[in-house]
Amino acid sequence: MSGVVVQNIKRADLSIIDGLAGCGVATVHEAQGRTGLLAPYMRPIYSGARIAGSAVTISAAPGDNWMIHVAIEQLQEGDVLLLAPTSPCTDGYFGDLLATSAIARGCRGLIIDAGVRDVRDLKQMNFPVWSKAVHAQGTVKNTLGSVNIPVVCANALVNPGDVVIADDDGVCVVRRANAATVLEKAQAREAAEEAKRVRLAAGELGLDIYNMRPRLAEMGLKYI
Amino acid sequence: MSGVVVQNIKRADLSIIDGLAGCGVATVHEAQGRTGLLAPYMRPIYSGARIAGSAVTISAAPGDNWMIHVAIEQLQEGDVLLLAPTSPCTDGYFGDLLATSAIARGCRGLIIDAGVRDVRDLKQMNFPVWSKAVHAQGTVKNTLGSVNIPVVCANALVNPGDVVIADDDGVCVVRRANAATVLEKAQAREAAEEAKRVRLAAGELGLDIYNMRPRLAEMGLKYI
Amino acid sequence: MSGVVVQNIKRADLSIIDGLAGCGVATVHEAQGRTGLLAPYMRPIYSGARIAGSAVTISAAPGDNWMIHVAIEQLQEGDVLLLAPTSPCTDGYFGDLLATSAIARGCRGLIIDAGVRDVRDLKQMNFPVWSKAVHAQGTVKNTLGSVNIPVVCANALVNPGDVVIADDDGVCVVRRANAATVLEKAQAREAAEEAKRVRLAAGELGLDIYNMRPRLAEMGLKYI
Amino acid sequence: MSGVVVQNIKRADLSIIDGLAGCGVATVHEAQGRTGLLAPYMRPIYSGARIAGSAVTISAAPGDNWMIHVAIEQLQEGDVLLLAPTSPCTDGYFGDLLATSAIARGCRGLIIDAGVRDVRDLKQMNFPVWSKAVHAQGTVKNTLGSVNIPVVCANALVNPGDVVIADDDGVCVVRRANAATVLEKAQAREAAEEAKRVRLAAGELGLDIYNMRPRLAEMGLKYI
Amino acid sequence: MSGVVVQNIKRADLSIIDGLAGCGVATVHEAQGRTGLLAPYMRPIYSGARIAGSAVTISAAPGDNWMIHVAIEQLQEGDVLLLAPTSPCTDGYFGDLLATSAIARGCRGLIIDAGVRDVRDLKQMNFPVWSKAVHAQGTVKNTLGSVNIPVVCANALVNPGDVVIADDDGVCVVRRANAATVLEKAQAREAAEEAKRVRLAAGELGLDIYNMRPRLAEMGLKYI
Amino acid sequence: MSGVVVQNIKRADLSIIDGLAGCGVATVHEAQGRTGLLAPYMRPIYSGARIAGSAVTISAAPGDNWMIHVAIEQLQEGDVLLLAPTSPCTDGYFGDLLATSAIARGCRGLIIDAGVRDVRDLKQMNFPVWSKAVHAQGTVKNTLGSVNIPVVCANALVNPGDVVIADDDGVCVVRRANAATVLEKAQAREAAEEAKRVRLAAGELGLDIYNMRPRLAEMGLKYI
Repeated sequence: MSGVVVQNIKRADLSIIDGLAGCGVATVHEAQGRTGLLAPYMRPIYSGARIAGSAVTISAAPGDNWMIHVAIEQLQEGDVLLLAPTSPCTDGYFGDLLATSAIARGCRGLIIDAGVRDVRDLKQMNFPVWSKAVHAQGTVKNTLGSVNIPVVCANALVNPGDVVIADDDGVCVVRRANAATVLEKAQAREAAEEAKRVRLAAGELGLDIYNMRPRLAEMGLKYI
Repeated sequence: MSGVVVQNIKRADLSIIDGLAGCGVATVHEAQGRTGLLAPYMRPIYSGARIAGSAVTISAAPGDNWMIHVAIEQLQEGDVLLLAPTSPCTDGYFGDLLATSAIARGCRGLIIDAGVRDVRDLKQMNFPVWSKAVHAQGTVKNTLGSVNIPVVCANALVNPGDVVIADDDGVCVVRRANAATVLEKAQAREAAEEAKRVRLAAGELGLDIYNMRPRLAEMGLKYI
Repeated sequence: MSGVVVQNIKRADLSIIDGLAGCGVATVHEAQGRTGLLAPYMRPIYSGARIAGSAVTISAAPGDNWMIHVAIEQLQEGDVLLLAPTSPCTDGYFGDLLATSAIARGCRGLIIDAGVRDVRDLKQMNFPVWSKAVHAQGTVKNTLGSVNIPVVCANALVNPGDVVIADDDGVCVVRRANAATVLEKAQAREAAEEAKRVRLAAGELGLDIYNMRPRLAEMGLKYI
Repeated sequence: MSGVVVQNIKRADLSIIDGLAGCGVATVHEAQGRTGLLAPYMRPIYSGARIAGSAVTISAAPGDNWMIHVAIEQLQEGDVLLLAPTSPCTDGYFGDLLATSAIARGCRGLIIDAGVRDVRDLKQMNFPVWSKAVHAQGTVKNTLGSVNIPVVCANALVNPGDVVIADDDGVCVVRRANAATVLEKAQAREAAEEAKRVRLAAGELGLDIYNMRPRLAEMGLKYI
Repeated sequence: MSGVVVQNIKRADLSIIDGLAGCGVATVHEAQGRTGLLAPYMRPIYSGARIAGSAVTISAAPGDNWMIHVAIEQLQEGDVLLLAPTSPCTDGYFGDLLATSAIARGCRGLIIDAGVRDVRDLKQMNFPVWSKAVHAQGTVKNTLGSVNIPVVCANALVNPGDVVIADDDGVCVVRRANAATVLEKAQAREAAEEAKRVRLAAGELGLDIYNMRPRLAEMGLKYI
Repeated sequence: MSGVVVQNIKRADLSIIDGLAGCGVATVHEAQGRTGLLAPYMRPIYSGARIAGSAVTISAAPGDNWMIHVAIEQLQEGDVLLLAPTSPCTDGYFGDLLATSAIARGCRGLIIDAGVRDVRDLKQMNFPVWSKAVHAQGTVKNTLGSVNIPVVCANALVNPGDVVIADDDGVCVVRRANAATVLEKAQAREAAEEAKRVRLAAGELGLDIYNMRPRLAEMGLKYI
């Protein structure tokens, strides 16, 4: 199963991808029925970034970053690298040189269920990473993995070409085929939230806006 | 025991609460005999905030944020929401809409032994949160909990109306009845520290300022 | 073995130490054959700092910071305090008063396999710390430890006078006797990387720069 | 608040305590409305034990087991020692000598939110322990704590004299005043479960026994 | 995506499933190219069990075990229940009553990326469970999930009808379509290992059996 | 530093080693001044084993068990294999075939700061292992490491030929040169404990045996 590079993956339209980035992880996750989140241990190396991109997936041996070099050749404008090691690992697979190369190919960021290093440089380069660890530990280039096959990353299934959205709340994956629909729902959700925000800011209560009082009373909530 | 909202809790004076905020977590914790700290896994979603407030406590089912809506109605100027789930949970109970509502009621921040989301927005809104996790995972509104009952949150007992202090060092709780006394001791401590700070900055050693040398010698410390 | 203070340790030249700081943790670690890293749970209390210094080591009982006072007397310009507790501990051994004292003695930072507090003040003072935890929990002064003996800190052996480099990627230790050689290799590495960075930024691939294609083919990588 | 030994605590009747032991943790926890559980990291040092007893509580400094000696004098037949450190600790506070002494005073076991050692001996002595860690690390006797004050242990509040039930499922605390009522409910629950067990063993489905099908259909569950 | 029960899933032949159980997790995992392992935090509640079965998969809300009742109706002789919560959870979803029902339907065990309880009873009933936690915490029945849809469980993708093998080494999943081939390879592997075992037991070295010396020498291994 | 095998290490006398095994980890650790323990996450794969042996140390790349084959050739009767990976790893480096080979060379057990597999077989073979994880994940044979160099294993420094003691309480290392002295102290400690055990079993209190009451009173302990 290892040792394969799939070269021509399908991608969602960049306009849809950018739309999803605008909505952010929490909204997109809600809009697709509360699915698609990666595990909460995936954290950004610096705060404030919000990206979306087409996943170029990497399955790699623990402590071996050879396949990242292979994957970079497959990158297009608007892509995101996403790496899942074949067993748990915190090594620093990726640093500023790889980021330089990835940026040159149009890459928007990295999602890695392992470690990353040179994080000061990456921040200066404005290249965001969501990872399980920050670790200077280097890796080797001895074992084949695969590029652009389906992988399980931080407890979520990701197919090549799926849209990955990432921000300070974590990382969410949207199936390529659903991207347009999910964007529509996410934007509808945002519009609806805006109206509620105004009312809540004015001091109105969620208890009233959402008409929760009757159901709370029915279930027996007692005020003392 | 579930399904109760206590409406009229007693609170400490805002002047005392604000005084405690000024002293910060480490000093207050020392001033009350090294008690009251929540577990160190409770971390701020952004650095630099320092708050104190009266605890409006929430006991909630895992993955169910219904009671937060109920609690917001109980908020007064100077309060802090504090949520303890009834079993371990990392779901994102709270986001920007709830924060909008809480702020409108005078709330200063949230302490939650679970997850939070929309952290980019919360930072922009200047609404600080101390939590166990950041996770976009949404919650449901199906199960009753309680508001303003004593809860154990991150391994510390918190009563409604207790003063909660939070900053980059973590979170500390002070019993409402002790708040004035603890503030006095904390301010005395600060004054004493200021004098020591000047001497230490001038190069004087703690070994001499605190007269540690005789006891170290007596216990057998050897210089080689 | 406890209860000893070694007073006159040897140190590397400050020019070498400063050179290593300039290279950073990831490069130094690579330059000495991928050795010397502390465990990845050692994280900076604020981002952006990069230091190197001669280790003044402290072996301390859990929850007892007495030996830090003893160690501060041993500090010289360019030193770094490094503390290893004798059993796992998250207590806040160190705060702004100790930092004031350490700075007055020329100390550049603290590496501690335990907790730290007053982190807001430490950041304002520009005193960097790498620690396992942030915790306001105070410590006592009851039990002797030792200063300037070899310690194991976060799974790495550190001798007094070894050079410790720390930045956003973590912490790395270089044996004093090897410091000059490692610096040379690290700087050579940096120069070599610079050339590659230019080529990668121009869009050239690592696959070609490092001539990886033949070996990948030989091992059976298949492009689909 | 530290440095207090409360000598004459009230206890529940041994017959009630023994009844609760017979029901076990999961049933007792359900019977009192799903409250009272300690955190799931509290694990038995050997499987198969099931005990209940009156809590003799200990608040102790990290790495300091002095107060266990003080607490043992307060033990009566049917008691359980329960220790909460004042900050997180994995040291081995307790071993075979202390167990010998505790058994001589009628103690049924130990609940400790820290470490324990001599676990091979403890198993041979048939003295069960539920702990956060097994660690041979020794402790000192330098700092006062308290005996028989309310403590928060593994995220649960325990008062002296509360009934503690422990088995392979974990540890549960029942307020002394509620012990009789909770026992009644627990035994009723057991009886009800027995009838269901017979039907389930015969192949009848929970879907039918609990009449779940209509509500599932109403909520929209689809069979494909 | 939630609220679906797929009723007629395909299963592998029981003879193949039983053959895979005989080989065990480590061998099967090797035989299919080192893929298919669940995360190592999945541990058996008692040691010594070794099972294989067809996966009846459950996607459930955190703290909600309603769907287990639904899944039990779908069980056939030789099946294994496998539950993945939609967000991280340690609650005890499953106990002796559900086990009674599952056994009556021919179920061989449970794989659950969450908690389990009544583990003493489950051991007596000889019903093995691999779980992330043991926790007495009960669950509710309020939210729909799905049965027999693909799930990601402990970082591995599992389809309904895939063969799941579990023993003291952990849990491994084999795609239904590959089960026969993997069994063949696993049994071939076992036979080959047997021959090596005899030689190794006689004192022959792996260095010689696998002819490692030349490659070690070539790579520069030095004997001192 | 990698790629070295030291062939003729010095070992302690087997009679001393066996004596230390008889004393067990907790006693030996106390006898050498509470030093030498490995981190508490090192747990036995089955309970009840107690061994001591001369350490044959292995420094290995993550996920690469090649050096174990090299190390086995260096084993003598009474040795223990001890492996430290160069970065954190949970892979299963060791299984029943390697155990067969190690036993044939006189090896008494394995200490590994990583994973192990085939644990059911290892238990049947009576070959004890203390590890950080149990994981079926296989390893490769691509990267050189070293045998019989000093390593840091689970936060403790171990030199080749040091005596390693392991039992249900964890793992402790004794420097070869100190082994005889430590054994003497450990046996003296055991004798002293035996006398105390008799008195404690008779109901005498530690408070009296150790004459703790005056110091407790002096420090202000209050009985209520």
